Amino acid sequence: MPRAWHLMSRPQGTPAADNFALKDIDLAPLADGQIRVRNHWLSVDPYMRGRMNDVKSYVPAFQLGEPMEGGAIGEVVDSKAEGFAPGDLVQHMAGWRDEAVLPARAVNKLPQLGVPPELFLGVLGVTGATAYFGLLDVAHAKEGDIVFVSAAAGAVGSVVVQIAKARGMTVIGSAGGAEKCNFVRSLGADQVVDYKAGPILKSLAGVAPEGIDVYFDNVGGDHLDAAMALARNNARFAICGMIEGYNATTPMSFRFIQRIIAARISLRGFIVLDYMPRMAEFHAEMGSWIASGAVKSRETVVEGLENMPAAFLGLFKGENIGKMLVRL
Amino acid sequence: MPRAWHLMSRPQGTPAADNFALKDIDLAPLADGQIRVRNHWLSVDPYMRGRMNDVKSYVPAFQLGEPMEGGAIGEVVDSKAEGFAPGDLVQHMAGWRDEAVLPARAVNKLPQLGVPPELFLGVLGVTGATAYFGLLDVAHAKEGDIVFVSAAAGAVGSVVVQIAKARGMTVIGSAGGAEKCNFVRSLGADQVVDYKAGPILKSLAGVAPEGIDVYFDNVGGDHLDAAMALARNNARFAICGMIEGYNATTPMSFRFIQRIIAARISLRGFIVLDYMPRMAEFHAEMGSWIASGAVKSRETVVEGLENMPAAFLGLFKGENIGKMLVRL
Repeated sequence: MPRAWHLMSRPQGTPAADNFALKDIDLAPLADGQIRVRNHWLSVDPYMRGRMNDVKSYVPAFQLGEPMEGGAIGEVVDSKAEGFAPGDLVQHMAGWRDEAVLPARAVNKLPQLGVPPELFLGVLGVTGATAYFGLLDVAHAKEGDIVFVSAAAGAVGSVVVQIAKARGMTVIGSAGGAEKCNFVRSLGADQVVDYKAGPILKSLAGVAPEGIDVYFDNVGGDHLDAAMALARNNARFAICGMIEGYNATTPMSFRFIQRIIAARISLRGFIVLDYMPRMAEFHAEMGSWIASGAVKSRETVVEGLENMPAAFLGLFKGENIGKMLVRL
Repeated sequence: MPRAWHLMSRPQGTPAADNFALKDIDLAPLADGQIRVRNHWLSVDPYMRGRMNDVKSYVPAFQLGEPMEGGAIGEVVDSKAEGFAPGDLVQHMAGWRDEAVLPARAVNKLPQLGVPPELFLGVLGVTGATAYFGLLDVAHAKEGDIVFVSAAAGAVGSVVVQIAKARGMTVIGSAGGAEKCNFVRSLGADQVVDYKAGPILKSLAGVAPEGIDVYFDNVGGDHLDAAMALARNNARFAICGMIEGYNATTPMSFRFIQRIIAARISLRGFIVLDYMPRMAEFHAEMGSWIASGAVKSRETVVEGLENMPAAFLGLFKGENIGKMLVRL
């Protein structure tokens, strides 16, 4: 019997195991134009926390008592859709479950590039595109810039570091703890700061004596405040995520927000979905970086559908290096 | 004997009278290329608070024990500079005093436009240019946009309201108290909210049920937070000032800063000095608005050099409607 994780209650602050329940689901027989997919890989992403709240946003909220959703890669096991045959690998949004019946138009067949399929949830997928368009388009980062990226050992951050190096920038990454800092260093970062070892402002000032031109924000809070404190004139901030705030129930406070004016800082929030029409651009350049080894993929893999909520909650405890995935 | 206000100590938090002292100054005899100016009007501006701190910024800090500076308009009383004769009206940065000896290259002769000279410190000067470039260039505000401007009864805010109406925008202004709110309404604002009458977020939500496209920030703090809460997708914020923070010793906190991401908000700080090469553009359009009556000037005039610090401190107590000036 196929199973899916359902949202049973909405969290106040940090989610807990009892917000989720794994339940059997009935899958209707295939209609024309539909395929049946068995999932191999489930994407685990911080933005899913926002969908647990009952608020209007750029993606609909998860509904109480209903199955949850997310990026996934699976294999076609049955098809009544032209162009799809058993064995085809497809990407779709019916994650948080082991099997799904989907209209063929709601899935993308993976191109045969000779790379592991799970890369299409990571460096070659929305995660990689977030890093690519956020750094190059939103922040207009260019050769010679001093770029600071927070959560640099995370799924998006680790790709930002590598793209920035491939494009000739100086890169400072932040991460929590020695293991993650070593990983960020191994990606080519020029400087790494451990935000668990002391106040981020002090650490960042120590390694960025000339300040920063670009900040790629995955964290918010003190990281964002430190970036404002140390921004050079006309600095550009791409605001991709604020994981520090997703479970917070108190406001974020900033000592250096007035530097926006004197340093003429631009902050711009973005959603990668807005860049879907430009994915070909991303695939072309990222494909060549992966082929040349300039960009490497790193995943933290959790085994089994049962562990999907644990993997998700692990994101907020910093348990992942690189992209967090669940393998079925 | 000419006199000038000197900075005697640096304030912590709100400045007080004893930070300033009015002292006699010696003016050297005129050298070649110099003029002697008697000031008629002194500009009184919130940004001067920043210059009282000992920090590096876009204008140098005032020096302890030295005369202070600021925009001023005066009359040439003696000249050893070609092209300048007694009676000429000039604009310069030797404010906070009654007389100055200046190199001719440090002053601008006022064009003879048949308008009161003090307008060159207000709507036709840096104040007007701040409103103009901030709204139209930094925030890219355009016809049809819903524009929210804070401190809309102030020097810059009152010009923003009028430019926005001249360009076909819907305008919501905030101000403190009934008199100022009536003034903002008289400028043509479609909606006015009194931030002293209740929480700004609630008031703004009441008059902007569809949200806002543009926010022109003069205040920071709760105003900025409310603007983030109510921003529509792709909203643009021009961050001009944060008067709430200039004397504050605690951080500013924000409940809605994460909406930067979901609503794809751009925030951009700016300094009008960066637009000096484009002043001709501003003068042409603002000149025609003043001629047609689309933009009107309003000043709060304080009499006498002795009262310059009181006028300055009055800015932070909201004592001005329109531009604050001291007349000598």
